[in-house]
Amino acid sequence: MDFLKNIQLVGKMIFGAGSFDRLDGILTEKRSDSCMVFLVDDFFQGRDLADRIPVRNQDRVLFVNVDVEPKTTVVDDLRDRILQLNGRAPDGVIGIGGGSVMDYAKAVAVMLTNPGPSSKYQGLNLAKNASVYHVGIPTLSGTGAEVSTTAVLTGPEKKLGIKGEFTPFHQIVLDPQLIDDVPRNQWFYTGMDSYIHNIESLTGHYANTLGNAMARQSLHLCREVFSNGDPTDLASNEKLMVASLLGGLSLGFSEVGACHAFSYGLSFVLGTRHGIANCIAFNQLGDYYPEGVAEFKQLVARLGIDIPAGVTKGLSEAQMDKMIDTTLALEHMWRHALGEGWKDRITRDKVREIYQRM
Amino acid sequence: MDFLKNIQLVGKMIFGAGSFDRLDGILTEKRSDSCMVFLVDDFFQGRDLADRIPVRNQDRVLFVNVDVEPKTTVVDDLRDRILQLNGRAPDGVIGIGGGSVMDYAKAVAVMLTNPGPSSKYQGLNLAKNASVYHVGIPTLSGTGAEVSTTAVLTGPEKKLGIKGEFTPFHQIVLDPQLIDDVPRNQWFYTGMDSYIHNIESLTGHYANTLGNAMARQSLHLCREVFSNGDPTDLASNEKLMVASLLGGLSLGFSEVGACHAFSYGLSFVLGTRHGIANCIAFNQLGDYYPEGVAEFKQLVARLGIDIPAGVTKGLSEAQMDKMIDTTLALEHMWRHALGEGWKDRITRDKVREIYQRM
Repeated sequence: MDFLKNIQLVGKMIFGAGSFDRLDGILTEKRSDSCMVFLVDDFFQGRDLADRIPVRNQDRVLFVNVDVEPKTTVVDDLRDRILQLNGRAPDGVIGIGGGSVMDYAKAVAVMLTNPGPSSKYQGLNLAKNASVYHVGIPTLSGTGAEVSTTAVLTGPEKKLGIKGEFTPFHQIVLDPQLIDDVPRNQWFYTGMDSYIHNIESLTGHYANTLGNAMARQSLHLCREVFSNGDPTDLASNEKLMVASLLGGLSLGFSEVGACHAFSYGLSFVLGTRHGIANCIAFNQLGDYYPEGVAEFKQLVARLGIDIPAGVTKGLSEAQMDKMIDTTLALEHMWRHALGEGWKDRITRDKVREIYQRM
Repeated sequence: MDFLKNIQLVGKMIFGAGSFDRLDGILTEKRSDSCMVFLVDDFFQGRDLADRIPVRNQDRVLFVNVDVEPKTTVVDDLRDRILQLNGRAPDGVIGIGGGSVMDYAKAVAVMLTNPGPSSKYQGLNLAKNASVYHVGIPTLSGTGAEVSTTAVLTGPEKKLGIKGEFTPFHQIVLDPQLIDDVPRNQWFYTGMDSYIHNIESLTGHYANTLGNAMARQSLHLCREVFSNGDPTDLASNEKLMVASLLGGLSLGFSEVGACHAFSYGLSFVLGTRHGIANCIAFNQLGDYYPEGVAEFKQLVARLGIDIPAGVTKGLSEAQMDKMIDTTLALEHMWRHALGEGWKDRITRDKVREIYQRM
């Protein structure tokens, strides 16, 4: 169990209302003889933000659908389309959207310079070639994907990230004015990803002074937002954006835990989106995170958020087995949550029982 | 007044007791056909840490004296010596020491690839060529130099940093076990640099949600250390190391203020070391930072620290004028501390009066 992680940070970071307007200048410095490719959540198709993208010359805007969790097959398809459109790798890939678009932008940037299917690279430091320049511009806060060293993907065999030093963005643009038009439930589900990251980061065996400092401040900001915040308010958007960033950084030096292990199972078998899957799972994890889950339930009640129930009803035995397998395969999460003896503390029956309550 | 700063972060970061032992592996990946140059505080000459440096083949260890603030002339000399010793630029420069050694390592890494004297590069983004790979390994906490985008130097004309995207370290190694053998006063002076950074960062006009979040957590950790901490205790060393990091990051998105403007004057004219110069200055700045200075005085009293008095007594009129000039030339600090109308709010007479109290 190695507690010392050498983490690649993002390259440059600009923060504040209006920073999206700096994008054109930022990209100018990185333009060579190819083009820029903008990967944009198709939610923005026809909206103002799409018109504000600083498209020049041979640049391409590709709208990406993220109704389902990011898939290795979609990454491969995007990579192939970009190479075909352009005849070669672009000067840069710019992701504009929520956590899923961040994951796509990071994964595509890595796969443009590493041969073969992206499923081959699900794991730690499997990519050998430096990625193309890539920029992350979040339009939704909570996932920490803007600073993480992982592009989380669902492949044919597993949900696991392309993780390593080539994955993080070379540049992130954090403009709280872009966090807009988000339905209330979605705002909560995604924002709560950050809250849950902090609880998981702080309470596990990998916790250390650096990760804890970031997680504590992130948790403080989450509480300010979810206890008093208004999703349409710029001050809340700024706070949740910073909470997401610090929560994501904290995880670099710690780990997610039991909630993400269950959440990955739901997403892999049922295709449940990550934010809501976390909320469904966390709601049933009072045995592991008593204080965090109690506070979570209070926030859900105060804000009138719907947490789906009965999602595992009617699953076949094979589906339930696959879900349990997925959860228990995430050994690093369990090792963090429960320590080296985790296998004695979380059994298949216990996992099944918890899933049946969801 | 541009509130949106696009900040280059450090590349990789490893944190925790024992991380110094990973240095050899970290450097192995970066070795090409040249050598590594270790710039080490000469305090460590003959001490255990010097023997633990992973020197290989043609690597060089250069001990650096930091009894006085880092100078442009010393940077130029180090650069020339390294090029002469080696016949070409090294594969990397590794700084091991306090803030001054961090500044030297950053400045030398930039100057190995940019021609002419380093005084030519004092300012923002004046270096045009990427620096050589450089690593920062702090042995003293507080300055934030391990994460800052500036290598602060005293040149023939001014004290001003080589600031820009090529300055920050490609790698930092944060091992709290290296923070050792520091005399109590020095521990306080340097640690208080972080406390003062946070007060200055939080209270000025550039303050924003991101910088504030980092500064608040850093301040919290400073208080834990200076209210209860023991300088020989690993937990305190870890906290102060994280406080230094977060304080330094906060400044990236904010600015230092009045205390650093006065402190630079003391250092430029009297050669006072940065940490103690800050403490001498901050002690007299209750008009600008009432709560911060009140708390500072309590901590000084509780810990029985000596803050020198009467340091400006006996200065010639020319020296005092130079000190005032130095202070008032730091316009970005005053703009942050007092706003656009700062010239109406801080006069030469006021600066002189405050200096006379120090």
